[in-house]
Amino acid sequence: MASFRVGIVGASGFTGAELLRIAAGHPALDVVLATGDSQAGTRVADLYPSLAAAYPDLTFEPWTAGLADELGLDVVFLGLPHGTSQPIVAEVHDGKRLVVDLGADFRLKDPTLYPRWYGAEHTIPNLLDEAVYGLPELFREDLRTARLIATPGCYVTTATMALAPLLAAGVVERSGIVVDAASGVSGAGRPPKPTNTFNAVDENFEAYGLLDHRHTPEIEQNLTHVAGSGVQVLFTPHLAPMNRGILATCYARPTASITTDEARAIMRKAYAEEPFVVVTDRPPSTKATLGSNAVHVTAYSDERTGWVVALAALDNLTKGASGGAVQAANVALGLAETTGLTAAGLYP
Amino acid sequence: MASFRVGIVGASGFTGAELLRIAAGHPALDVVLATGDSQAGTRVADLYPSLAAAYPDLTFEPWTAGLADELGLDVVFLGLPHGTSQPIVAEVHDGKRLVVDLGADFRLKDPTLYPRWYGAEHTIPNLLDEAVYGLPELFREDLRTARLIATPGCYVTTATMALAPLLAAGVVERSGIVVDAASGVSGAGRPPKPTNTFNAVDENFEAYGLLDHRHTPEIEQNLTHVAGSGVQVLFTPHLAPMNRGILATCYARPTASITTDEARAIMRKAYAEEPFVVVTDRPPSTKATLGSNAVHVTAYSDERTGWVVALAALDNLTKGASGGAVQAANVALGLAETTGLTAAGLYP
Amino acid sequence: MASFRVGIVGASGFTGAELLRIAAGHPALDVVLATGDSQAGTRVADLYPSLAAAYPDLTFEPWTAGLADELGLDVVFLGLPHGTSQPIVAEVHDGKRLVVDLGADFRLKDPTLYPRWYGAEHTIPNLLDEAVYGLPELFREDLRTARLIATPGCYVTTATMALAPLLAAGVVERSGIVVDAASGVSGAGRPPKPTNTFNAVDENFEAYGLLDHRHTPEIEQNLTHVAGSGVQVLFTPHLAPMNRGILATCYARPTASITTDEARAIMRKAYAEEPFVVVTDRPPSTKATLGSNAVHVTAYSDERTGWVVALAALDNLTKGASGGAVQAANVALGLAETTGLTAAGLYP
Amino acid sequence: MASFRVGIVGASGFTGAELLRIAAGHPALDVVLATGDSQAGTRVADLYPSLAAAYPDLTFEPWTAGLADELGLDVVFLGLPHGTSQPIVAEVHDGKRLVVDLGADFRLKDPTLYPRWYGAEHTIPNLLDEAVYGLPELFREDLRTARLIATPGCYVTTATMALAPLLAAGVVERSGIVVDAASGVSGAGRPPKPTNTFNAVDENFEAYGLLDHRHTPEIEQNLTHVAGSGVQVLFTPHLAPMNRGILATCYARPTASITTDEARAIMRKAYAEEPFVVVTDRPPSTKATLGSNAVHVTAYSDERTGWVVALAALDNLTKGASGGAVQAANVALGLAETTGLTAAGLYP
Repeated sequence: MASFRVGIVGASGFTGAELLRIAAGHPALDVVLATGDSQAGTRVADLYPSLAAAYPDLTFEPWTAGLADELGLDVVFLGLPHGTSQPIVAEVHDGKRLVVDLGADFRLKDPTLYPRWYGAEHTIPNLLDEAVYGLPELFREDLRTARLIATPGCYVTTATMALAPLLAAGVVERSGIVVDAASGVSGAGRPPKPTNTFNAVDENFEAYGLLDHRHTPEIEQNLTHVAGSGVQVLFTPHLAPMNRGILATCYARPTASITTDEARAIMRKAYAEEPFVVVTDRPPSTKATLGSNAVHVTAYSDERTGWVVALAALDNLTKGASGGAVQAANVALGLAETTGLTAAGLYP
Repeated sequence: MASFRVGIVGASGFTGAELLRIAAGHPALDVVLATGDSQAGTRVADLYPSLAAAYPDLTFEPWTAGLADELGLDVVFLGLPHGTSQPIVAEVHDGKRLVVDLGADFRLKDPTLYPRWYGAEHTIPNLLDEAVYGLPELFREDLRTARLIATPGCYVTTATMALAPLLAAGVVERSGIVVDAASGVSGAGRPPKPTNTFNAVDENFEAYGLLDHRHTPEIEQNLTHVAGSGVQVLFTPHLAPMNRGILATCYARPTASITTDEARAIMRKAYAEEPFVVVTDRPPSTKATLGSNAVHVTAYSDERTGWVVALAALDNLTKGASGGAVQAANVALGLAETTGLTAAGLYP
Repeated sequence: MASFRVGIVGASGFTGAELLRIAAGHPALDVVLATGDSQAGTRVADLYPSLAAAYPDLTFEPWTAGLADELGLDVVFLGLPHGTSQPIVAEVHDGKRLVVDLGADFRLKDPTLYPRWYGAEHTIPNLLDEAVYGLPELFREDLRTARLIATPGCYVTTATMALAPLLAAGVVERSGIVVDAASGVSGAGRPPKPTNTFNAVDENFEAYGLLDHRHTPEIEQNLTHVAGSGVQVLFTPHLAPMNRGILATCYARPTASITTDEARAIMRKAYAEEPFVVVTDRPPSTKATLGSNAVHVTAYSDERTGWVVALAALDNLTKGASGGAVQAANVALGLAETTGLTAAGLYP
Repeated sequence: MASFRVGIVGASGFTGAELLRIAAGHPALDVVLATGDSQAGTRVADLYPSLAAAYPDLTFEPWTAGLADELGLDVVFLGLPHGTSQPIVAEVHDGKRLVVDLGADFRLKDPTLYPRWYGAEHTIPNLLDEAVYGLPELFREDLRTARLIATPGCYVTTATMALAPLLAAGVVERSGIVVDAASGVSGAGRPPKPTNTFNAVDENFEAYGLLDHRHTPEIEQNLTHVAGSGVQVLFTPHLAPMNRGILATCYARPTASITTDEARAIMRKAYAEEPFVVVTDRPPSTKATLGSNAVHVTAYSDERTGWVVALAALDNLTKGASGGAVQAANVALGLAETTGLTAAGLYP
């Protein structure tokens, strides 16, 4: 299989490490560069002993302008904090090379949303139109020719996969939607902070980011796209004492009477050809997706109270980040979409 | 301090063990009987090494009719599966002795609800009126003279503590309420089952009991009580990978524009004199309540989407079961309500 | 790549499920049969939702004599309780087909050890000599022509990988060795029991099987093999609150003064060509091996007290069971030894 | 009950928070001061919501010289990093007030050990003789008149409780002892670091501090004290994915043939009058001691390999730190030794 020369910018964080893990088993991705400014000079094997056997000789390097050309990179993945991808994308995006941003900088199409949700103007808003949203289940055709991909946020993928078919089918109302979700701790990233120590998290469950989590406008953007007009959601994330996994439990009002079976039939039809989507008849569990690119979804309709409940589970670092990014990149690179990805979860 | 002779019927389960733990530090409760039919003959110290130093000589006995009189019990706690308390309560409830049922058999006031939610007719419906619902924060005055107390379900206490002040004040709608909650595994009881093994639960988060969990009508009963007329809720429980703790995240529509500060002020006023309630300015965490009888609550109002979010956290085995039961018993026995209970959580 | 028709007998347990997971990504193993007597008729996807996308149509079947021939199986893996493999091996072992037993029935070479450690005479002791011990790091050459492979116990692989190079080099004494190890809970299997519920295990650490764990004679057999004469170990397993992973911390007396660097140099030399062994300069962590076939080892020498400490970490279900079995099978099938296996761990 | 005015210096760490928790339920300890330089100005309720109901008004203050006299403190507890207690003890220790140091500064009797194990000369070595080692099980009589108490290290208490009776009875050798122990993460303290994040610790088990952990000389000091002459141990700590708890599995050579029953009888005799020690007939579990001041111990003798295995389990923050400190303080203050402490663990 032809092989692409890959650079990962911001490879020392969890999404970077997950990209390295996936690339180690991907027959067409050859990682020739892993940058990490704060870890420059550290061996990958020392920061991530889990990668010691796969990358015995790779060392994190500092990012410098010109590196992508110098190394002849075919693909650049970026795993950087929001705001910091923009100048690097501006440089490496040349219309030939594939650039896949795992951060937030190119996810929102409306540039006016950046100051509101991310606290700063977008510096290269002209690229927002060109960036293709990296969710093959919604934008597969656009991805085939994409050279700049914006990988969705982890909660966003989860909520979107749960609600999109129902909104697309017009069977739930576009307003009054509640997305109540719980995530494992890796979503908060690798650097130590008071909120992610073992003692703070273990045996604890709590909500955070109430009313104003940054994934809110992105969920609304996706659901508005499939519904045809404005969708509004209240999104409440929670932190669960586990490493990986997101479950979204979503509440929406039916537009007309609908049964549980009918709601699931809509999901099954929408996802019939999807290689990574499993529509289940019981509540999906995060654990069924551990380390895999699978997403499990289902729906319930409660006629007593007049609610439809849609649920989705996935691994936030795989399908919710690096696995989803590779899936999208596979499409853009003309590879089979499942190359180097597994739908089989690690259990237990 | 005068001491009451206490029997615990069904003491081998987690609520029974928690009662034993609390009683070990309670100056007025003297446990003279602990029954457990499936564990009869087993030393408490062998089934629960955590209690070895506190109860070196206590052994689980089988329950037999007449034991309460024979042993001169002043107080009988029952920690039994639903349906099994009724005949024992019928026997031991004599109008003098205090009977505290931690099960579900006397929680619902409307006897027609038992066949629907518990699958069988109530056998002594005449006692339903006499039973006082064991939530001092709502029924303190009734508890002072109670001889039969029905301790609330763990999720029910959590959701009630979050929503009751707002419904009592009339600031949220009585319909369309969603209670989305997560519990630690001890809520499922001690006996091993495929759903509560470590390997099934650890690193997992999933919903269960969708649309039809038995705590639903009990939440509705409480909230209807405080609201004055019919409240309807959709209740979705989740299982979180931790031993103890429940967090309820509740969504309700405001009846008129309300701010977060106004919602919290209503909570602070309602709970001003409560010894175990903490109204917080940040999202409550289950961990803050570990092993204590405290419940932490707060509220948020989202004007953008038109939702009020009310949250409560507690320890399902303490405030949510055995601690709450002792709190209610203290009231009925004329003791200081906080006797033998702590509001300080174990951290970390 | 040519493909082998594979049957997994006893596929409903954790080692069976791990085999299914690995086989799903293995280009030459085609699973055509998965048996599980207690789960017969259950879809694999229902018992293990993690495998739903990989095996949408596979159902556990009962084992019946003649199935291996009827289905034309090239490879039979057995994941059965000790004692139960023997009659099935007697049937399916025909000298052409590859039989890989993941249980204990063919691990010990000395038939007199079975009554002592497993409570029953071996029924086909003549096959004990023919069975090749499935640890390629020790028996690679024998495995190339093996038709019956006995996969090592999980603790045994761990302790052997830590101690074998030092005993082979004669730098530690053969007696007085202590193997102190901790395992994740999956080692206890899938069926629920009082000792493997979440509430029993979470936030707990304890020893078990003191003095008489069945892996003891197997560790001694391996170490005696490499040392040339009788090695004796005291083995103490512990249960750690995690799903997977074993760490063995082994204590041995040096035969002569030796430094930490010298001890590690012996390990590095012994494992220089091994694709799955990483010799580290810091204490190995179980987490570095999660879901991978890697084993991490190191050693320390304490001149103050006169002890050498050798440590090894691995995933008990992968390298310690099903991954190790596939590695050995790859050798016996003439495939590249690493086919379908990864040395990159899932982190975090 | 008469009440003592208590100050806690360095109260913002875990041992300080545990002291606050215990003091909240202690009838004779009245906390009037909690200092924490890095948290000065923070409300206790904000840093530790678990203490919000118990200490609604307490705020961490900076420590300043003279505070102990100014506030009329009867008891000063110090929970500070090693090296930092010395100047404060020098000031507040006046021979009347009780000073209890939970740090390492006064544990070792031999001043020459401080440079070797703690990297600096002791600044007030004359106080080392006066300091009483705060382990009532070994030094109860000395504690009755103590005004300066050095609370043992958490691993040290665990290993000492396991081995002391056997060494005191002369039934095990004084050399060649191995102490292999595992601890929950709270032993590493509250501040976030790469090694104590949830993602680093959860689902992981690893050794650390190999050969040179600072608790080594302290274990040797205690065991030498009971044995009468020099004891040497190799100590290997491990980190287990749990909040609290230490299990020590200790290996020693019998001086003469001894049975398991004989070894346990020695333990039972040694601890017959101890209110917090439970001698068990099965392996002790850390979970049996959660949040309590209990310590569970047992022993095994393996005649096959010639080892005695002694085990002890406790809660590192309670019996292993703040509970043990209060137990020792109770003795020194003339209170009943168990005042304010429980031997009943939180389960599950």
